[in-house]
Amino acid sequence: MTEEFDVQLPAYSRGFHLITESIKNEMGDLPKSGLVNIFIQHTSAALTINENYDPSVREDMAAISDNLVPENASFYTHTMEGSDDMPAHFKASIMGSSITIPIRNGQLALGTWQGIYLCEFRNRAGGRKLLISILS
Amino acid sequence: MTEEFDVQLPAYSRGFHLITESIKNEMGDLPKSGLVNIFIQHTSAALTINENYDPSVREDMAAISDNLVPENASFYTHTMEGSDDMPAHFKASIMGSSITIPIRNGQLALGTWQGIYLCEFRNRAGGRKLLISILS
Amino acid sequence: MTEEFDVQLPAYSRGFHLITESIKNEMGDLPKSGLVNIFIQHTSAALTINENYDPSVREDMAAISDNLVPENASFYTHTMEGSDDMPAHFKASIMGSSITIPIRNGQLALGTWQGIYLCEFRNRAGGRKLLISILS
Repeated sequence: MTEEFDVQLPAYSRGFHLITESIKNEMGDLPKSGLVNIFIQHTSAALTINENYDPSVREDMAAISDNLVPENASFYTHTMEGSDDMPAHFKASIMGSSITIPIRNGQLALGTWQGIYLCEFRNRAGGRKLLISILS
Repeated sequence: MTEEFDVQLPAYSRGFHLITESIKNEMGDLPKSGLVNIFIQHTSAALTINENYDPSVREDMAAISDNLVPENASFYTHTMEGSDDMPAHFKASIMGSSITIPIRNGQLALGTWQGIYLCEFRNRAGGRKLLISILS
Repeated sequence: MTEEFDVQLPAYSRGFHLITESIKNEMGDLPKSGLVNIFIQHTSAALTINENYDPSVREDMAAISDNLVPENASFYTHTMEGSDDMPAHFKASIMGSSITIPIRNGQLALGTWQGIYLCEFRNRAGGRKLLISILS
C-alpha cells in the first residue's frame, strides 16, 4: 500500500543543505515498517544521504562537486542557460534523483550520522518540488 | 502488490539516450498511484534521469563522463576487455543500475524537464535488458 | 507487504568487496516476485552493483575513486577525522546508500555479471550495518 504526498521546498542557495527535519515534519506519522522514497522533480538539483553533524562536510561536498565538474569546460556545447547549468545536470545524475530509506518502529531508520541532503547545483534556483511515497 | 515485466532495448551507440517514450509504451496502463522501479541487468550501462529537451545536454553528459573517467589510465589493471570497459564499469556505478519514479494519477510523475536516460558506456554493446517493477 | 531484517557485516578493508553471497545467505527464502532494497546506515561506505567475476575490476574501481576524489586536497575544511574521511563521504554519495534489486522466480534477478559490492572508503572501519527490506 502506498501513501503519497508532495513537499514544496523553498529556494535554497547553491550548495548542500540538510533537510532531514523539514522532511520529517512534512511526513507526520509513519507506518510501523516499510520504505520511504523521496523523489526530486528537477534535473539540476539532487537528493543524497550523508553526514548530518558537521557543516564543513556539506561545504566540502559542494567544493568537491565543483572541482570534479568545473564550469566553462572548453568542450561544453550546452552553454545557453549559464555556466552553472551543464555542470548542474551532471552533478544531479551522479548524486541521484531519489533516495529510498527504510522505516522501522515507525521512524525513518537513518543511521546515527545520516541526514537527508538537498543538493542545489544552480546559482539562482527557485523552490524545488519533492514527491514522497511511503510503502508499507 | 507488484506487477513486473521485462523490456529488451535494441543496441544503442555509446552515449546518453532518451528512452522515456519507449518505456512508457512498454508499460501500458499504470495503477493510479505507486512507484516504478526500472533496473538494468548490466554492469557497463546505466539508467539515470535528466533533462529531456536539448540533445546537447546528452552529448555533454557523455563528454563529462569520458573526461572524468578517461580510457587508458596508467593504473588500470582490468584492460583485457578493451579500453572502454573499465571506465564503463565505473561510470555505470556512479550513474546507477536502477531508477525509481513515483506514479501519480496513473502517470509517471516526472518533472516537466525530466526524462529517462539509457547511459551506454561501451563502444559496441548489444541490446540491454531492463526489468520493470510496478508497486501499488 | 514488507519483510525486513538487518545484516551486520564484519569489518572490511578499504576497497570494493563482493558481498552477494553473504546477502543471499542472510535473506533465506524470497517471495516469488517483488523488490529488495538494501540500505547501508553509514556515510563513509556505500553499496553498488557491478561486475561479479574479475577481482581486477574491484581493484580498479577503488583506484578510480581514489584518483577522482584525492585525499588532502588543499580546499578541504573537514580534516579532523583523517585524510580518508572527507573523500569517503563524497564517494559514498556518488555510489549511493542503497540499491534496489527486482525479485523474479523467488531469486534476486541480477544479470549474469552483476554482483553486490560493499564500497568501504575508510582505512580502518568497523563492521557496517545493512537494513534489508523485501517488498512483495
